[in-house]
Amino acid sequence: MTAALLTDKYELTMLAAALRDGSSERTTTFEAFARRLPDGRRYGVVAGTGRFLDALSEFIFDDEALAPLTAFLDSATLDYLRDFRFTGDIDGYAEGELYFPGSPILSVTGTFAECVLLETLALSIFNHDTAIASAAARMVSAAAGRTLIEMGSRRTHEYAAVASARAAYIAGFTGTSNLEANRRYGIPAMGTSAHAFTMLHTTADGPDEQAAFRAQVDALGVGTTLLVDTYDVTTGVANAIAVAGTELGAVRIDSGDLGVLARRVRAQLDELGATGTQIVVSGDLDEFSIAALRADPVNSYGVGTSVATGSGAPTASMVYKLVEVDGLPVEKRSSRKESHGGRKAAVRLSRPTGTIIEEVIYPVSTPPELTDPSRALTVPLVRGGKPVAAPDLAAARTLVASGLRSLPWEGLALSQGEPAIPTRQVPMR
Amino acid sequence: MTAALLTDKYELTMLAAALRDGSSERTTTFEAFARRLPDGRRYGVVAGTGRFLDALSEFIFDDEALAPLTAFLDSATLDYLRDFRFTGDIDGYAEGELYFPGSPILSVTGTFAECVLLETLALSIFNHDTAIASAAARMVSAAAGRTLIEMGSRRTHEYAAVASARAAYIAGFTGTSNLEANRRYGIPAMGTSAHAFTMLHTTADGPDEQAAFRAQVDALGVGTTLLVDTYDVTTGVANAIAVAGTELGAVRIDSGDLGVLARRVRAQLDELGATGTQIVVSGDLDEFSIAALRADPVNSYGVGTSVATGSGAPTASMVYKLVEVDGLPVEKRSSRKESHGGRKAAVRLSRPTGTIIEEVIYPVSTPPELTDPSRALTVPLVRGGKPVAAPDLAAARTLVASGLRSLPWEGLALSQGEPAIPTRQVPMR
Repeated sequence: MTAALLTDKYELTMLAAALRDGSSERTTTFEAFARRLPDGRRYGVVAGTGRFLDALSEFIFDDEALAPLTAFLDSATLDYLRDFRFTGDIDGYAEGELYFPGSPILSVTGTFAECVLLETLALSIFNHDTAIASAAARMVSAAAGRTLIEMGSRRTHEYAAVASARAAYIAGFTGTSNLEANRRYGIPAMGTSAHAFTMLHTTADGPDEQAAFRAQVDALGVGTTLLVDTYDVTTGVANAIAVAGTELGAVRIDSGDLGVLARRVRAQLDELGATGTQIVVSGDLDEFSIAALRADPVNSYGVGTSVATGSGAPTASMVYKLVEVDGLPVEKRSSRKESHGGRKAAVRLSRPTGTIIEEVIYPVSTPPELTDPSRALTVPLVRGGKPVAAPDLAAARTLVASGLRSLPWEGLALSQGEPAIPTRQVPMR
Repeated sequence: MTAALLTDKYELTMLAAALRDGSSERTTTFEAFARRLPDGRRYGVVAGTGRFLDALSEFIFDDEALAPLTAFLDSATLDYLRDFRFTGDIDGYAEGELYFPGSPILSVTGTFAECVLLETLALSIFNHDTAIASAAARMVSAAAGRTLIEMGSRRTHEYAAVASARAAYIAGFTGTSNLEANRRYGIPAMGTSAHAFTMLHTTADGPDEQAAFRAQVDALGVGTTLLVDTYDVTTGVANAIAVAGTELGAVRIDSGDLGVLARRVRAQLDELGATGTQIVVSGDLDEFSIAALRADPVNSYGVGTSVATGSGAPTASMVYKLVEVDGLPVEKRSSRKESHGGRKAAVRLSRPTGTIIEEVIYPVSTPPELTDPSRALTVPLVRGGKPVAAPDLAAARTLVASGLRSLPWEGLALSQGEPAIPTRQVPMR
């Protein structure tokens, strides 16, 4: 299957209508942006750019895709789709860039026909990946340098899971449990063990936790992570060191009061001489509980549900709006859904220290005169239908890290608040 | 790509350890269930069964899947995976069945090796699809018989969107905007038009809404749905009828106070003689706003974000737990994460009127003696690795509809509350 049918019916019926009256060939610009950040969030992190560029190359209407469309499209529209390739230009924020309300994170220019077809695909990818990366970045800043492992695959759609692992990695997670994300994107695959493996070693005489640990260490070496909370944590830690010795890589605690248990387990490990054995915690962690564990002897956090579902904001609520037709700015005027007409670009101003102070969105035809230090946010992504920027996860990770460093201190607060910096819309002249 | 890598690394390292000490061949049963319903929900709707059975047949480790695994698995494990086919038995709730806390919606029996491998795939599919169907069913009951159109593809991952459309359809939605869901599952594809199409018809003299409507009617006929709120709703309705005549299929309102606008538009349409022209509303609708519009002249609701993200509960939080090993019940004992050991089945008791009163979960070896009317919930899905139940969306829709009718009246309340019926766990003898 190509990506062509990952779209809404109305885009194809609008295409049919536009082909019929000739408006399909008008030159248009569509912009993707979020009117607001989710619930009190102070910044967002753009993700999905690389996946969108990959999907664009698969956005082809082959016979399999065309077959169901014959039920409602005329032959002129079907002919158009059969030959369809996007041939326009796309600009946007680089993957990993911070964004704020109104930031034009994607700007698509071409004929109406080719631009309108990309609406759903672009929004699906950016809304999902950006939601995950935005939540994950808060966890990264809450973890203050400790390791984060994405393990939320089981809580979300099986392919959303792969994209979630990628988005969390962009935001600064160290690795993922997801094997397809490892295969597809080279993200480090990480893992420990489940309670089932310990319980599997149950006989008529009862549980045998040491047998389970022995099997794991025999197969995976003493550098492995043993899950110590299936029955009793203190006994579990004693069993773990008895089996693996003091060179054991790590123990994982997945339930209970993680702070209390981490301190107790750290003391026990140290007493047993396993001073180098690390502590991994997991179990319904989110950015708030990660932050709350900052003073406790935790080395790594395994994060599942909250990262894979955007920690309360599973979508970035971006929209894709027509802003220009044949050089004329256009705007919708319905109540509370205003858009700003005209093709735009953006820069971000900062103090000489690097702390950002304002985002300025301006018509491409009239760049503002700026006195503060500034950085252009809008970069070319596609020219004449061909990607000009190769997806680069390492670069995206670097960009997120420098973006977080550039925020004013209140921008990193986890509490609900206003966007970290204001956005100024420079009007069309 | 097969489905084999849509899983977590630890399942394969547990497999490696179990193969090494021989425990991989022990006979096990794993159960999937939700410890609780999301936030004050009163019932849930099982969805994903059909997709899980499809994915099971694609859960094959071909060379492409095995290649990245050579980095961390021994040759015995790789050999096992190369020949892997699930050969066990699976029971579970039928797709579309209601569920409550603890309901064993899936029960997988086979060797430890074959059961542990399915954990992430099963949970991903059920957690996602069930979350969507459970939210969608509340919207269906709130709509009280009016048409619901799923149009949330753009708010969620591009493949999650396809599964969302399917889950919403199972719950009782009439159709979806998603074309791949139409192709793959035969779900009716529906659609209207976007503001972009109206704004496309802008010239140096300004907007020309009538030109846009004319193009759409010329291409799609007067049965189409015209979007009337791009500029001004009253003018939009007047333009729509001027162009299409009084036989116009429908108008859509996508912003503003939908109830007020629907009443005003209904009056205007009736006055113009378009008494048969329907009103479609959309714009951040959820089950609460759908219910609030019950007294207004709305014919159809287009629902996006809230259905595709589970209306506040984007995952069903199901877990997949080992409950039996070689006939011995096993349980985890960590704080607040108790599981009930032993392979189980379930029945639902009702009054003679059909209103359900209790769910009873019992060890398969000791069915309870029941006096009230009851219905078995656990049905065979796979025997010896082969599906014995064909996915059937129509049957799932019927089951949801009858499930909603079977709830006590307070079970259909949209406010937060307790599960609609209690669940009784019959202990192992």
